[in-house]
Amino acid sequence: MTDLPTSVHIHEEGPREGFQIEPGPIGTAEKISLIDALSQTGLHRIQVCSFVNPRLVPGWADAEAVVEGFSPAGDIEYSGLYFNGNGLDRALKFRDRLTISGSISLSASEAFTRKNLNRGHAENLAAMKRHAEAHLAHGIPVNRIGVMAAFGCNYQGDITPATVVDTLADGMAVADETGALITVFSLADTMGWAAPHRIERVIGAVRERWPDMTLSLHLHDTRGLAVANAHAGLRMGVSRFDSTVGGLGGCPFAGQPGAAGNICTEELVMLCEEMGIETGVDLDLLIEAGRMAEAIVGHPLPSELLHAGSLGRFRRTALD
Amino acid sequence: MTDLPTSVHIHEEGPREGFQIEPGPIGTAEKISLIDALSQTGLHRIQVCSFVNPRLVPGWADAEAVVEGFSPAGDIEYSGLYFNGNGLDRALKFRDRLTISGSISLSASEAFTRKNLNRGHAENLAAMKRHAEAHLAHGIPVNRIGVMAAFGCNYQGDITPATVVDTLADGMAVADETGALITVFSLADTMGWAAPHRIERVIGAVRERWPDMTLSLHLHDTRGLAVANAHAGLRMGVSRFDSTVGGLGGCPFAGQPGAAGNICTEELVMLCEEMGIETGVDLDLLIEAGRMAEAIVGHPLPSELLHAGSLGRFRRTALD
Repeated sequence: MTDLPTSVHIHEEGPREGFQIEPGPIGTAEKISLIDALSQTGLHRIQVCSFVNPRLVPGWADAEAVVEGFSPAGDIEYSGLYFNGNGLDRALKFRDRLTISGSISLSASEAFTRKNLNRGHAENLAAMKRHAEAHLAHGIPVNRIGVMAAFGCNYQGDITPATVVDTLADGMAVADETGALITVFSLADTMGWAAPHRIERVIGAVRERWPDMTLSLHLHDTRGLAVANAHAGLRMGVSRFDSTVGGLGGCPFAGQPGAAGNICTEELVMLCEEMGIETGVDLDLLIEAGRMAEAIVGHPLPSELLHAGSLGRFRRTALD
Repeated sequence: MTDLPTSVHIHEEGPREGFQIEPGPIGTAEKISLIDALSQTGLHRIQVCSFVNPRLVPGWADAEAVVEGFSPAGDIEYSGLYFNGNGLDRALKFRDRLTISGSISLSASEAFTRKNLNRGHAENLAAMKRHAEAHLAHGIPVNRIGVMAAFGCNYQGDITPATVVDTLADGMAVADETGALITVFSLADTMGWAAPHRIERVIGAVRERWPDMTLSLHLHDTRGLAVANAHAGLRMGVSRFDSTVGGLGGCPFAGQPGAAGNICTEELVMLCEEMGIETGVDLDLLIEAGRMAEAIVGHPLPSELLHAGSLGRFRRTALD
């Protein structure tokens, strides 16, 4: 039994993820040209920057300039990433250009929460409650609970589906306390622990508890299984995915220097389109944008499809 | 409904595929050391060389020296590739070291047969009949029909499941005429056209016609979908796969310079082991062999897992 969706909604995070992790300085104009190229591909939602502390993440010191500089197109939603009240305040200055919505961001791994945020799960829940309240006070909806390390953790090992359900329940309690109306659960394979059966089990457990919640997958290709995991998600009816063009980004977590980052948008699009699932994306234009990204970062990106090219041109030639 | 196998049989083709396509000369001793390292990983079958014309494939001019030099271990089967009577004669000199068996090798694409072999399907069938007869005359079994381009072709476009069935039927007719007893059908995604649903449809059609035949998949990761395709095959009960450590090899076919080659053995092993399917392979030793292969060829190989490392060490650390 499969429950394939008829269409999927892709959140392109390449500009934000990619330019955050690259060592070299990347010019504001280059960031803007990639965003503008991605805007022509048919993608629904593009994350254009990160409002983080420029001392910690110098690659995004020009977040404001990028948001001011890109050319919004059609009905694409553009988003920015932020983690705290200061980031929210910076994002709020661009309510005319960015779609701003809040997220209750948790981790299924207590050990990862401590490593990543220097606080435990309980403290993080309290922080997320304040974060949600700050959004709601500005009239910004908080509609999403994100769970990092939902399939395993470098610091804690395997994560059970029950732990993911408990983490989401904790997030739902924060939502209830603050009056946030949650519509999406986002499950992240932050460190590349997922395999298809694990996707099936976690999604099955979450669906059993919250049958009507929209689920989104944020997959990393750390060990090469991201596309197989996306396929497992599609078979379970998942219709929302985060991804990065060319596989921009990487893995900043312990013990994995040089590991791959997010699932490649173009491989996700090819998987869907070949299976008859609508993405709205022009794959050849997306591959062109990916090649632009590769030229900007100045080294090969992990995407195989970027280098092979789409099947479209071969189909067209074969039919001639 | 899934029909996962309890174990899989992997044919490691890295030494042969990898050293054939690399531009630089690779020393005989280095080839032998990779084969010997692979012999320690638990792999069942390793293809160690190609008995091809050294003027056409200079990378395998030392085939005999490699076969004489490696150290056979345990009950591993070692194989050599060849395409014609001259290659068979060269292989037959090593009946003590190699497991030699014949294959009726066809393509589901007439256009690819012409491009690749400079002859049509009918001529190729006649050649394969002679090839099978030559094997049987030496007491060598012919037990396999291989179908290249079984999921699509750069020169002919999409290939229907019915065409694959017809191609196999043509091969079975050759087997009948020659008295060959076929036990395995190998379906190859030679140019990276497969997607999971296509795997399901082709395997479904072949199974309907030959319910009891053992099926093997030879997948290429040209567009990044190989692991997802392997997963689709596993779900259909396929228990034999060809692969190459690190993703050694490449794509010599038109219009795809720089494209990836075969599915990576270590990603296939991880997929299986994480799903509870036994491979017999020690993943960490295999990753070490892959890193040796990368050092030998002198450039990064496509495997993501090679660069990230296995989950095993994180699991062990997390348990400490």
